[in-house]
Amino acid sequence: MSILHDSAVRGFASDNYSGIHPEVLAAIAAANDGHQSAYGADVYTEHLQQVFQQHFGEGVEAFPVFNGTGANVVGLQSMLPRWGAVIAASSAHINVDEGGAPERVGGIKLLTVDTEDGKLTPELVDREAWGWGDEHRAQPLVVSITQSTELGTLYTAAEIRELADHAHERGMRLHLDGARLSNAAAALDLPLRAFTRDVGVDVLSFGGTKNGAMLGEAVVVLNPEAADGLLFGRKLNMQLSSKMRFVSAQLIALLEGDLWLRNARHSNAMAQRLRAAIEQGIADGAVSGVEFTQPTQANGVFATLPDGVADKLRESFRFYDWDAARNEVRWMCSFDTHEDDVDAFVAELGRLTAS
Amino acid sequence: MSILHDSAVRGFASDNYSGIHPEVLAAIAAANDGHQSAYGADVYTEHLQQVFQQHFGEGVEAFPVFNGTGANVVGLQSMLPRWGAVIAASSAHINVDEGGAPERVGGIKLLTVDTEDGKLTPELVDREAWGWGDEHRAQPLVVSITQSTELGTLYTAAEIRELADHAHERGMRLHLDGARLSNAAAALDLPLRAFTRDVGVDVLSFGGTKNGAMLGEAVVVLNPEAADGLLFGRKLNMQLSSKMRFVSAQLIALLEGDLWLRNARHSNAMAQRLRAAIEQGIADGAVSGVEFTQPTQANGVFATLPDGVADKLRESFRFYDWDAARNEVRWMCSFDTHEDDVDAFVAELGRLTAS
Amino acid sequence: MSILHDSAVRGFASDNYSGIHPEVLAAIAAANDGHQSAYGADVYTEHLQQVFQQHFGEGVEAFPVFNGTGANVVGLQSMLPRWGAVIAASSAHINVDEGGAPERVGGIKLLTVDTEDGKLTPELVDREAWGWGDEHRAQPLVVSITQSTELGTLYTAAEIRELADHAHERGMRLHLDGARLSNAAAALDLPLRAFTRDVGVDVLSFGGTKNGAMLGEAVVVLNPEAADGLLFGRKLNMQLSSKMRFVSAQLIALLEGDLWLRNARHSNAMAQRLRAAIEQGIADGAVSGVEFTQPTQANGVFATLPDGVADKLRESFRFYDWDAARNEVRWMCSFDTHEDDVDAFVAELGRLTAS
Amino acid sequence: MSILHDSAVRGFASDNYSGIHPEVLAAIAAANDGHQSAYGADVYTEHLQQVFQQHFGEGVEAFPVFNGTGANVVGLQSMLPRWGAVIAASSAHINVDEGGAPERVGGIKLLTVDTEDGKLTPELVDREAWGWGDEHRAQPLVVSITQSTELGTLYTAAEIRELADHAHERGMRLHLDGARLSNAAAALDLPLRAFTRDVGVDVLSFGGTKNGAMLGEAVVVLNPEAADGLLFGRKLNMQLSSKMRFVSAQLIALLEGDLWLRNARHSNAMAQRLRAAIEQGIADGAVSGVEFTQPTQANGVFATLPDGVADKLRESFRFYDWDAARNEVRWMCSFDTHEDDVDAFVAELGRLTAS
Repeated sequence: MSILHDSAVRGFASDNYSGIHPEVLAAIAAANDGHQSAYGADVYTEHLQQVFQQHFGEGVEAFPVFNGTGANVVGLQSMLPRWGAVIAASSAHINVDEGGAPERVGGIKLLTVDTEDGKLTPELVDREAWGWGDEHRAQPLVVSITQSTELGTLYTAAEIRELADHAHERGMRLHLDGARLSNAAAALDLPLRAFTRDVGVDVLSFGGTKNGAMLGEAVVVLNPEAADGLLFGRKLNMQLSSKMRFVSAQLIALLEGDLWLRNARHSNAMAQRLRAAIEQGIADGAVSGVEFTQPTQANGVFATLPDGVADKLRESFRFYDWDAARNEVRWMCSFDTHEDDVDAFVAELGRLTAS
Repeated sequence: MSILHDSAVRGFASDNYSGIHPEVLAAIAAANDGHQSAYGADVYTEHLQQVFQQHFGEGVEAFPVFNGTGANVVGLQSMLPRWGAVIAASSAHINVDEGGAPERVGGIKLLTVDTEDGKLTPELVDREAWGWGDEHRAQPLVVSITQSTELGTLYTAAEIRELADHAHERGMRLHLDGARLSNAAAALDLPLRAFTRDVGVDVLSFGGTKNGAMLGEAVVVLNPEAADGLLFGRKLNMQLSSKMRFVSAQLIALLEGDLWLRNARHSNAMAQRLRAAIEQGIADGAVSGVEFTQPTQANGVFATLPDGVADKLRESFRFYDWDAARNEVRWMCSFDTHEDDVDAFVAELGRLTAS
Repeated sequence: MSILHDSAVRGFASDNYSGIHPEVLAAIAAANDGHQSAYGADVYTEHLQQVFQQHFGEGVEAFPVFNGTGANVVGLQSMLPRWGAVIAASSAHINVDEGGAPERVGGIKLLTVDTEDGKLTPELVDREAWGWGDEHRAQPLVVSITQSTELGTLYTAAEIRELADHAHERGMRLHLDGARLSNAAAALDLPLRAFTRDVGVDVLSFGGTKNGAMLGEAVVVLNPEAADGLLFGRKLNMQLSSKMRFVSAQLIALLEGDLWLRNARHSNAMAQRLRAAIEQGIADGAVSGVEFTQPTQANGVFATLPDGVADKLRESFRFYDWDAARNEVRWMCSFDTHEDDVDAFVAELGRLTAS
Repeated sequence: MSILHDSAVRGFASDNYSGIHPEVLAAIAAANDGHQSAYGADVYTEHLQQVFQQHFGEGVEAFPVFNGTGANVVGLQSMLPRWGAVIAASSAHINVDEGGAPERVGGIKLLTVDTEDGKLTPELVDREAWGWGDEHRAQPLVVSITQSTELGTLYTAAEIRELADHAHERGMRLHLDGARLSNAAAALDLPLRAFTRDVGVDVLSFGGTKNGAMLGEAVVVLNPEAADGLLFGRKLNMQLSSKMRFVSAQLIALLEGDLWLRNARHSNAMAQRLRAAIEQGIADGAVSGVEFTQPTQANGVFATLPDGVADKLRESFRFYDWDAARNEVRWMCSFDTHEDDVDAFVAELGRLTAS
């Protein structure tokens, strides 16, 4: 197959615009050749269990799936009876970016709460945490949070513990959408389990795709009592890979050593560089009219721009509007973002906004 | 990542026990580096459309998905209103191997018919093709066939045309599960379109995984009037890959040149070699007690064995029981099956059965 | 409201073509006036529990629903995890007459088996009772039978016990679609529990509509360990009546005294009269060319007719074709069928067929 | 059946705590006896079409169903492709009182917006009316309003027209949950069509149960282009009554003459009487600490009470908390509420609150 794309072009659209980290690609190649049992009965998927236990402790079980929507729906469904509902931030990926799959495929009612920064609090949870036993109300039995959030913000370990305790005291479980869990760990400078299993998260979606994999996520059961039927649920929800060794090999490549952390630290650092450079530009007068709308805690930067600037800036760099009505944009950094990319971007932003 | 498996071991369990063909792996690598738009807006997915049109003609559209169950459910759902049903052989993959996904996720009622050889005929279709307009009956609006079938058999182009005409005359569409479509083309020695689009197939699932891909199938719409909402259906059924370029690159690697055909011819040839060698063995008295239960038309061989032989044979080579109650087994050949594998297998079979 | 119909016209189309038994209508009126808590928290629904316990014994729980499809889907879903499947006769109402509701709404895969007389046997069950633990196969966890069957036949209590034991030994539960359970009890001359709870049925649908109610069925849990979440399941499946007292009052009217039995005995007797009169006519030469295709054990008679006779007979009496391809028809008797109706019908049949 | 309840007791809990209006019960009796075709092919259901057309104009079609949840889910599903979403007030019955049936059974994503008074406006609709064509977003294709609302408030005909125009200009349809449509008509003093079909409502749920029926609602298609497959959808969603004549007869009894209007006017008048009496009591000092939280425009009154009063008042009269956290209660009047009931209630409220 011929190369059809310009492999030197990078932007700030999303961490899934990037490709495969070379070490991940090497792992795919290493797992190749010969026959291995399909559907997860292979040595790589077996070994992956140990790799996840190395990070999350004994007794955890990981179910590799294809993508983040699949991980969330399969994981949440495993935590709920047919009449269960999930309390989540209205900005949650499960609510706004999954094409209704949680409802349509998972049969899950979402009870959503508006937040300022993408983060639930016990008080926000309580807006929807009521009505148990009333058959007219889809029963709130799971709280789902995203870490790092869709708005580039972070929960502290203490905040997650507070949410977990709050949920557990009310008979609910805590689910965590960790499409960018590695970025959170890097930013918090904590082991993965310190802000998940150790503070009460029951089931999480672990994301590989946005951190250097070609494709591959896992439903990770941290509390075996909180999930049921995952083997069947993964299959019936069409998330069971036949040649699973290649999904597992990618996750091993990320998690067995420190690649997951190197990649996450790098993308976080690039976001910090981007923010710092713009702040410096504002201070210097090199950039004007730009206001940050969220703290930059992981690998995403959110800001409002002067009228018309976003479209001009996009002539050079891809990125998305977040809330077009108020000129808010999102800039995502990736494991493969270069310092030069950031610098060129800020220079162009300055050129377009400097008075 | 360390290599954990013995890459020299191969068996006859399934064509998805094999790995990735080197040319497919090279295509993944070629598509790597730099940023490409996610979710299919990349140059490889764009180019893939031309590649499919090269095989199936103008106007066809291909939607890459993760796996065969996904391709079948997404494709069938796109062909049906919520009250639609699908007539299929009771041996169809959609009926026996998809964990109920067509019913649960697709909301599709299957109307199944027993067959001798996995192949529907107009007469068999008519057992369930009735009741249109009666709201008590899930409406039979699609006939689904598999080519090559789950029993290793083939429809001729004329047989498919007859089924398509029969379905169309009754207001039904024809779906084809082509997880092994390449094997069928190789065996029939026909272009892909000659026994699909040209004879009336409306929508098909094109299989890459069992023919040398790491992972990747496509819903291919041959008749645009027969399918609706695939863009949305793929997403809401959790089959939308973010870094889709790597799925598309694999399909390009298979289909742009003749890799799809080379691989399929090879696996078919290995099945023929296997069958011929056993037949020779039977004639010679080197093998005894083995009876073939299906013609060997693609890459699978079905046979009954003397009591106890299957388990002993499995000590050396992996393969599956097909119908344990009558000692029927299935031996699948793959793109990477060696002639030596076949010869060693038949030798061992002889050792175990010769009187 | 004016009377728009001729209340003297009756036919043999279905036992749901009849109206409301006067005692049932009186019960609706008796439950009227004043306020009662909605959604089942009323005194009639409370009393109904005792009425069901009077028939089925202590510990049973009844959940009134609107219709038979609702009762079956709500009941079966309560017995199954999301990955469960139901083994049933291919002639079962759940398979052929519910518009695909079990699959689409219940998310239940049906594993169907052809039968001669609408009755499953352990041997027939075993055709689909396999594959537990294999996530590719929807898991067979419930066997569902219909009593009396859709073909007018009956299981003996011993046959049901054998099926229940067979199911239970394999980790499956036994569900019974009792849309015509009263007809079965009358024909078997047994108490309701003697051929249900006492022989191992776990959950049943109890039918009121076809035995003199305006509308009203109940999911009856005979084995509390076999069902889960019915309170929620009934609501989310849209089978929760707000003014439930009027559904419960109907079931009380039927079951508190012997109205259920009087009605069932009468409709059974009318079917026997119909069959006997035709047999006599055949013996006399007054009727010719009629062959019975099933034993007449409850309130339905199945027969084949000479070409053209069915349509001519329908000019005087409504009834349905059962299998038009072979001139098979179904004649159903109801609680309100008159002896004169039967006699006039047989006379007309004789007029049309006598040589 | 014995009378088990005290038919002189009435409260303010819900308009579905009441029974059957005598004229409706008489209609059930009038439709009784003799045989009528099941599943809607009877003369009463046929006549019902004319009755609905008399109110809503030519070309409308009505599909009787069992209950309000069924009417909403069947109606909304008929308006939407599988990937469609519905914009609704967060207080809508479909969001808070249907056990998740729209999502689980209908496969419908709800996009909810908070309101002050249960009423959507074009501005509120626009919070969720975006993202068409983006497969990641469940597509907003229907706006659903409730009239009168769950908060006892009313849309004017002009407000509905504005919403309909707004929706239609954006390619969306307008659905109306009319569980209390008659109350709205009575309060607005308008024909039913004047604030529905004439101002752009496409499909509505017409409520009989809360206005004097035993049970019975209808999906009414005002714009035939807006709905598809209702015949099948009603069946597969388990809302098809076999003895439908008795559901249709009830709706005829309500709608053929002016019973619907008499009942609605009465319940509205009782709510006005209740509010006026309390307001007078407040002015007199006979009642204190009561504040109304919504205008009283139909048959519901919403108010906050001093601490502890609600529970004491409930010792004499049934009613529900609306928002227990702030002592808000709901008092519903019904077609059978007596003036004496209201007066006694206000007297007791005064006794409990007067200082």
